[in-house]
Amino acid sequence: MFSLPKSIQELNSRQARLCLEIEKFGKSRAGADFSSGNMLVGVSGGIDSTALLIISTLLAGKSGGRVFCAHVNHGLRESAAGDAEFVAELCAELGVRMESVRYDVRDYARSHSIGLEEAGRILRYGFYQECMDRFNADYLLLAHHLGDLCEDVVMRLIRGTGWPALSGMDAADPGRKLLRPLLFTSKDRLRSFLESVGCPWREDESNLSMQYTRNRVRHQIVPLLIEENPGFGNGIRRLKTQAELDDDFWTGEVNRILSCAEGLDSGEFFVPCSVLNKSHPALRFRVYKTILESLGNGHVLSDSLERLDSAFSGRKSGSTVQFPGSKVVIVNKNGLLFKVIKTIDRESGKV
Amino acid sequence: MFSLPKSIQELNSRQARLCLEIEKFGKSRAGADFSSGNMLVGVSGGIDSTALLIISTLLAGKSGGRVFCAHVNHGLRESAAGDAEFVAELCAELGVRMESVRYDVRDYARSHSIGLEEAGRILRYGFYQECMDRFNADYLLLAHHLGDLCEDVVMRLIRGTGWPALSGMDAADPGRKLLRPLLFTSKDRLRSFLESVGCPWREDESNLSMQYTRNRVRHQIVPLLIEENPGFGNGIRRLKTQAELDDDFWTGEVNRILSCAEGLDSGEFFVPCSVLNKSHPALRFRVYKTILESLGNGHVLSDSLERLDSAFSGRKSGSTVQFPGSKVVIVNKNGLLFKVIKTIDRESGKV
Repeated sequence: MFSLPKSIQELNSRQARLCLEIEKFGKSRAGADFSSGNMLVGVSGGIDSTALLIISTLLAGKSGGRVFCAHVNHGLRESAAGDAEFVAELCAELGVRMESVRYDVRDYARSHSIGLEEAGRILRYGFYQECMDRFNADYLLLAHHLGDLCEDVVMRLIRGTGWPALSGMDAADPGRKLLRPLLFTSKDRLRSFLESVGCPWREDESNLSMQYTRNRVRHQIVPLLIEENPGFGNGIRRLKTQAELDDDFWTGEVNRILSCAEGLDSGEFFVPCSVLNKSHPALRFRVYKTILESLGNGHVLSDSLERLDSAFSGRKSGSTVQFPGSKVVIVNKNGLLFKVIKTIDRESGKV
Repeated sequence: MFSLPKSIQELNSRQARLCLEIEKFGKSRAGADFSSGNMLVGVSGGIDSTALLIISTLLAGKSGGRVFCAHVNHGLRESAAGDAEFVAELCAELGVRMESVRYDVRDYARSHSIGLEEAGRILRYGFYQECMDRFNADYLLLAHHLGDLCEDVVMRLIRGTGWPALSGMDAADPGRKLLRPLLFTSKDRLRSFLESVGCPWREDESNLSMQYTRNRVRHQIVPLLIEENPGFGNGIRRLKTQAELDDDFWTGEVNRILSCAEGLDSGEFFVPCSVLNKSHPALRFRVYKTILESLGNGHVLSDSLERLDSAFSGRKSGSTVQFPGSKVVIVNKNGLLFKVIKTIDRESGKV
């Protein structure tokens, strides 16, 4: 069915350059080395992940890298079985080992009272993690591309996300060994890559449904932005690059402050005034947010953060600022104490 | 024609609260004191500036503040003469001194080869500045509101603006003594204020024309974002508040580095490696940009900044990175030299 190039040398110069750009991006963002690592690629069979699987295989082929494939059938669409078959054929052609699974995402979403998108994400990432262990993989490669990044920035702008998270999904997440090598590559280039190597792909109809915010952003809002500026994607790339630097900077600064905090083991944090006094409010707010998020679930509202910083700046000793998830911050004259209040279990009466 | 409230006490509690919120915002952003300062308000006669003029007058009336009005007829619309009449009547009713002027913006735009929007802005701000001097005003108040801020963020996202400028126009610009007291107030609240005090306003038809990017953003794109999240404006307010802190932080850090630069008087800047070495790249990029912008016109491209930082990090001594506007940065082993290259005048042969 397929007849795909076996090495980068078989590509035309434009497509070879694309492969090398993607390799360089993965190196710069995560230190990933396609030609020596074990890479697990999440493949749906759409343009993006089909291109990523082929490109990863070509890059791995330069030397001794290995590529594996994970495919999830979400059981949501009639074409899903065909997608799984397509990915299996593709992997056979490429000589790539593949693991696949079928989930009933609708059922999972119903029984956990969550949306379809979230249910799909939870099941998918869970399976990817299993495959990572099975293949002893160094990286999980996902095929999010520049169009997805643009869309994600707009989604986050809509939701009211702050900086630097506003700049969209990260190119890499070391904690999950996750890398998005295509994040700065446009979908058009991926499509023309597949056309150039003569590889078909599967269309994902759910992407076209206007039922989801994400699809309205993708098909209505982002195209309007691109119409105003055809170079919109370049701007988003620059924004992400700036955000990566800022994120690195603020993470370092916050960690410097946290290293002066006390009681980090007990699930409580005490941050002395002596440290906060020397910190600019732009840093203090990020310290508050990082600590509160580390204490468990519950969205940290920025209005509450402002109240907390006012209490700190005004030295309102004894005052308590509450946050969702039973989290509180107590202001005293020596510093701020962050803790979770243990609530009484109504049925058992136990704490 | 009008019968407007003479003091805040005459307002219902909702409208009185609006006035006090606006007063507080002006105080927090620019230290502005409506009840003692000389305030010049730019008034077109639309909802926003009509509301701002009345609110400013009421706030000034609490004590000894004074309010003045500047109105510009851009000569672009048939209704412009009617707008000028309306503003004059409004000022008469409020007991506010008004200066107005008529420009031929179309002619100015043509003769200066610039767009209508830019021409209007140049002429308008020029006139405001004259009025500032004439009235010895402490602040120039402009009626940009939360809807304008939302629109400006989207415009800047489209253009590819970085952080923190992405967060839209500033609430205050001390250099121009400019203050936008309504920046966190929605247009709906301003409309209901005018309805509540029984004051009419003029409709600006040019705002409805889809000829301008700004109007497409206002009437097509921003409504789609609000449809996805009715609290979109609150998110933009939070984004701006965070950006104000970050801007203050980075301005301080950049100035700290610049205080170590040499040759600041001669229009050249030498920044020693010893200072840059200790600076995070997130700061270095902002230092480069600030210096280059201070050397004159010419858009500082972020690709060139990346090239410059690579040259610095790689200690590529002797290499030169060029920027638009005849600006160059020369990398040598002791630091970076920023300068404008004097070009030879082709006709006179003089430098």
